[in-house]
Amino acid sequence: MEEVKVNLGPKSYNIAITAGLVDQVGPRLRALLSQSETAAVITDSNVGPLYGERLARSLRQAGFQVVTLTFPAGEQSKNLATLTELYTGLAKAGLTRSDVVVALGGGVTGDMAGLAAATFLRGVAFVQVPTSLLAMVDSSVGGKVAVDLPAGKNLVGAFYQPKAVYIDPAVLKTLPVRFFNDGMAEVIKYGCIKDAALFARLEALAPAEMDKALPGIIATCCNIKARIVEADEFDNGDRMVLNFGHTLGHAVEKTYHYAKYSHGEAVGIGMLAFTRAAEAKGQTAPGTAARLANILQQYHLPLTAAVTPAEFLAAVQLDKKKKGHQLTIVLLRQIGESFLQKIAFQEIAAYL
Amino acid sequence: MEEVKVNLGPKSYNIAITAGLVDQVGPRLRALLSQSETAAVITDSNVGPLYGERLARSLRQAGFQVVTLTFPAGEQSKNLATLTELYTGLAKAGLTRSDVVVALGGGVTGDMAGLAAATFLRGVAFVQVPTSLLAMVDSSVGGKVAVDLPAGKNLVGAFYQPKAVYIDPAVLKTLPVRFFNDGMAEVIKYGCIKDAALFARLEALAPAEMDKALPGIIATCCNIKARIVEADEFDNGDRMVLNFGHTLGHAVEKTYHYAKYSHGEAVGIGMLAFTRAAEAKGQTAPGTAARLANILQQYHLPLTAAVTPAEFLAAVQLDKKKKGHQLTIVLLRQIGESFLQKIAFQEIAAYL
Repeated sequence: MEEVKVNLGPKSYNIAITAGLVDQVGPRLRALLSQSETAAVITDSNVGPLYGERLARSLRQAGFQVVTLTFPAGEQSKNLATLTELYTGLAKAGLTRSDVVVALGGGVTGDMAGLAAATFLRGVAFVQVPTSLLAMVDSSVGGKVAVDLPAGKNLVGAFYQPKAVYIDPAVLKTLPVRFFNDGMAEVIKYGCIKDAALFARLEALAPAEMDKALPGIIATCCNIKARIVEADEFDNGDRMVLNFGHTLGHAVEKTYHYAKYSHGEAVGIGMLAFTRAAEAKGQTAPGTAARLANILQQYHLPLTAAVTPAEFLAAVQLDKKKKGHQLTIVLLRQIGESFLQKIAFQEIAAYL
Repeated sequence: MEEVKVNLGPKSYNIAITAGLVDQVGPRLRALLSQSETAAVITDSNVGPLYGERLARSLRQAGFQVVTLTFPAGEQSKNLATLTELYTGLAKAGLTRSDVVVALGGGVTGDMAGLAAATFLRGVAFVQVPTSLLAMVDSSVGGKVAVDLPAGKNLVGAFYQPKAVYIDPAVLKTLPVRFFNDGMAEVIKYGCIKDAALFARLEALAPAEMDKALPGIIATCCNIKARIVEADEFDNGDRMVLNFGHTLGHAVEKTYHYAKYSHGEAVGIGMLAFTRAAEAKGQTAPGTAARLANILQQYHLPLTAAVTPAEFLAAVQLDKKKKGHQLTIVLLRQIGESFLQKIAFQEIAAYL
C-alpha cells in the first residue's frame, strides 16, 4: 500500500494507492466518517457499469445507504445542466450535511462530483475514486473542481479538498491504451518539471514491468503535486509550474475543437514545442528536447500539431489567469528542473 | 462612520456604515483592490434603477470599468437559471481573477452575486452594498451565499466571505415600509438572543428618532452577528442561535408558499410562538412573550399564523441541517439570553 499525505492544515487528507482498493472503500470511508448515513456515488456511463456495483457493495457492507447518480460520459457533460441534474439527484436522495459524495471516474467525474459536493448544502464531504491515470496523478490532488461554460473551460468551480482519495491502479486495465498514454503525458510532465529520476525510470521501463511499477509511479506523481499544492493552495503562483505544456496544450485542444487530440496528447505537444524553442534560445540544456521527444514516442504520444500564433493568442486571451498583456510560461532548465518566464503576447510566435 | 470588523483570519473584513456611502464605494474599493480593472455590479430590477448609476459613477471615477448585470427582482429569481445568466455575463465582461463582483441589493442579490463570485473562475473578489435592512443586519455578515432548488431553499451555495461591506442606511428611505419592518424583525431577534439593551432601545425608540438611530442599531446587529460567525464560520453549532424564530418561521413561509408572510414577519411569528410555549413550560422568564408581542406590534409585524404540526414537520424534515429525528430549537431564558434545546419530532406540537 502506497500512501501520500496532502498537508493542508484542517483540510489535510490521505491518498491511498493499491490494487483492489475499489473493494475496500466502504470500511475505509466508514473509519473516516462515522456519522454518515448516505453515500451518493457520482459516476459516468462508461465507468459506472464497470465498477459501480463493486464500489456500492463495499459501501453498503460498511453501513452506507448508496445512491448512484450516473451522467453521460464525456467532456460535453461537464456543464451546468448536468450539475443541475446532480443537485436534483442529491436533493431527492435526502443527502444531509453529514453525508458524503463519492466520485467514481476520470477527471470529468471528479470535477462534476467535486463541484456538486462543494456547493450542495454549502458543502458536503467528498472522496475520490479516480479511474483514469490522468485523474489519479493530476485531478485527484489539489482540490480544483469545475464545470465548463459555453464561453470556456473550467470557468465555474471551486477549490474544494476531498476527505480522501482511493486509487486502485488495477482499474486501469480496462482503460483503452490511448487513454492510458494520455495520463502518461502528465506523468512525464512531473518528471520534466521536478524529478529527473522519475523521468529516467520512465525511459527505462519495459512495457511488461508497467503493472508492477504503477503504484509507485502514481505515488511519486501525487507526492510531487501534493508538495506544490501545499505551497499554493489557491493557485496564486507556485502551482503555475504544473502548467508545463498546458499553455500551448490548451490552445491545441481548443484549435482542434477538443476532438483530434486528448488532453495529455496536447500537453505532450506543448511540452515539446516550448522545450525545443527554449533549447534553441539557449535557455534549456542541449539534448533535453530530444529526450522529451523520445519518451513521448515511447508512450505513443504525438510530437507536433500545427497551431498558428493567432490561434494560440486567441486561446490564451480567454485564459482566466491572464493579467494584462503578458503571459507566464513554464520552461525547463533541464530534465527535472523548471522555471517560470513572463513573455509579452507578441513574443508568442517565437515559442511555436 | 460606524465600522464593524469581522475577524476571520485571512478572510477578515470590515463593514462600513454611514449615510451617503453609495457614492463613496469607488475610492474605498480602489484602496482595497489596487489591481482590479473591472467591477461587475450585480443588481435587480428594483434596486438597479434607483442606485445603480450612482454606484457605477463612483466606481468609474476610481478607475474601474463597470459592467452592470441586472436580473428580475424577487426570490423566484434565486435559482440556477439566473445564476447561469450571471456566469454568462461575467464571462462576456472578461472578468479575471483580479477583478471584483459588487452586489447591490437585498438578500437575494447578495446570495446570487455571492455565489457567482464564489464560483466564477473558482472565486473572484466580492463586496456587498446591501440595500434592505434585512440584508444589512443579516445576510451581509457571515458569508452564506446560496440559490434555491425546486426541492428547497438555499440548497446550493457556499461559505464565501466578502472583502468588504458598504452599508448606506440612507437608501432605506426608498424601501416600502413593510420591507423595513421585515428587517426590524431580525433586529428584534438580535435583541432577544444577545442584547437586552438593544431590545429596550427598540422599545423606547420614537418613529421620528429612527433615521438618526439606524446606523448605530445596524452596527450593533452586525457586531452581534460577527462575534457569532467568528466562533462558527461553517455553521456547525454556535451559529444555530441565529435561527431563533426561524425554525417555525421557515415553516410559516413554506406553508403559505412564500406569498402571505415576508421572511421577517414569519420570523416574528416563530419567535413569539416558541417564547409563549417556553414561558408556559417555565423555561422562559414570565412576561417575556408579552414584551415580544408588544414590540412586534410596535413595528407592525403580525403575531400569529396557523401552522399545523404536520405542516411544521414537513417543512422541518426538508431542513438541510436535520440529523436523525431530532431538532435543535432556540429558546429564550429572558430577553437578551438564549439557549439551544433538542426536541424529538413528536414534541413539536407542544411549541405551536
